[in-house]
Amino acid sequence: MKIARFRTGRRVGYGVVMNQEVVEIRGSIYTRYRLTDIRYPLSKVQLLPPTEPSEIWGPGLNFVDHLEFAGAVYGGKTPPLPKHPEPWHKGRNAFIGPDDSIIIPKDSSGDVHYEGEAVAVISKLCRRVTPVQAVRCILGYTCGNDVSERSWQREDWTLWRAKGSDTFAPVGPWIETEVDPQDLELIVRVNEAEVQRAHTKDMIFSFAEIVSYISQQVTLRPGDLVFSGTTGTTSALRPGDVVEVDIPGIGVLRNPVAAEADGLPVLED
Amino acid sequence: MKIARFRTGRRVGYGVVMNQEVVEIRGSIYTRYRLTDIRYPLSKVQLLPPTEPSEIWGPGLNFVDHLEFAGAVYGGKTPPLPKHPEPWHKGRNAFIGPDDSIIIPKDSSGDVHYEGEAVAVISKLCRRVTPVQAVRCILGYTCGNDVSERSWQREDWTLWRAKGSDTFAPVGPWIETEVDPQDLELIVRVNEAEVQRAHTKDMIFSFAEIVSYISQQVTLRPGDLVFSGTTGTTSALRPGDVVEVDIPGIGVLRNPVAAEADGLPVLED
Repeated sequence: MKIARFRTGRRVGYGVVMNQEVVEIRGSIYTRYRLTDIRYPLSKVQLLPPTEPSEIWGPGLNFVDHLEFAGAVYGGKTPPLPKHPEPWHKGRNAFIGPDDSIIIPKDSSGDVHYEGEAVAVISKLCRRVTPVQAVRCILGYTCGNDVSERSWQREDWTLWRAKGSDTFAPVGPWIETEVDPQDLELIVRVNEAEVQRAHTKDMIFSFAEIVSYISQQVTLRPGDLVFSGTTGTTSALRPGDVVEVDIPGIGVLRNPVAAEADGLPVLED
Repeated sequence: MKIARFRTGRRVGYGVVMNQEVVEIRGSIYTRYRLTDIRYPLSKVQLLPPTEPSEIWGPGLNFVDHLEFAGAVYGGKTPPLPKHPEPWHKGRNAFIGPDDSIIIPKDSSGDVHYEGEAVAVISKLCRRVTPVQAVRCILGYTCGNDVSERSWQREDWTLWRAKGSDTFAPVGPWIETEVDPQDLELIVRVNEAEVQRAHTKDMIFSFAEIVSYISQQVTLRPGDLVFSGTTGTTSALRPGDVVEVDIPGIGVLRNPVAAEADGLPVLED
């Protein structure tokens, strides 16, 4: 089942996507809900990021094929195969939805890369769960783009802006609750040309293992998101590009890329 | 003025603290509010963490006197004087309020240290503000304890659990809106004995500079928190300790320390 968060007019709701329609639901997607009689054509609603997370997690290096590239990003040797996940926070401010623009910051070197990933959606408050229990803490999976500014990734002590600048966390288009998370093809296209292809069977740590590992020290909450990590070699996005993260069985997350407009500081009263 | 968030019975509200009372307010502490006639004795309410942040930020190394100690934590040389802040995320899950217990995780080496800090409370949506403008984006200041597990800080790629384990972000007791943030004495006591003393005049980067720096890539939101960084050398907390962060002119943030109970995983339906 595909669960989407959407806006129509001033109304924000959750719905189940079927037959090119969104059927609005009542209740909580994490506990209990029912379908209503209210339906909208999918083309008439704005899809929003599918949850309201308190935290967005990355797993650290999680594909063997990404180790060499990651070493090069940091200007050093290929790192060894990790023995456990190395979780990190992707900024909540960076979170955007389908069709929202990825903005290249005006003070960036321009080395802003896509990373197409699958994303687990947490469904329960959970702490110190085993990998087997972790499976029961996940509602489903969606597509994510772990947008990364490689110069900042190299220069800074943390990933705060390299992976956490505004708009660097596109997620969507909806949550698919009935896929095998370790049997997903991840395809990235830029302007319709394929630039990245990976498979979640090649994740060093499975979603269940990552969630279990984070939960040893952190209480995860419904709506929190856990990215899969990425693979291989990536390249820079340019203003005007359209980047798609396509996971057959889930859907396609599509985002245009734009340059940051010149403008005054934002200081909203 | 001192603005507190509090609970009494099932009711959660904001109030102004005066004469050992909390005077409840209506409206938003960030924009416009008025005092009501409802008053509670301060001793009869439970003080909560003073905001509901979307992000909690640390500035990286921000006191010259902490550089040598920080180098030792990482098992290396004293780092050079930073040229700009190195922001990082403190886990939202770690956030607790006055009198809540700091829990030493059962799989920690036990090397869990206090770091007494002042904390700026963001009042406006702001992006790309100058340090001068940043001053207008801050509602006030409170006390914070950047609790840190030194072994994990050394071993891990990021600070996710070293500084982000559950309960590692005590903040409170309230927001003081009328202090000079660069003229604050920071005192930490463990079991009533002073263990740390610092002064915000010695911050390498002022709050205004840190907020401005973060805002270049990140939209800050009302309620977001920015820690000052800490100074000098710290030591381990033990179960049974009571740790206080005292900032004269603001107040005292007091938290007991406890060992994590043995127990089953948490997996809440």
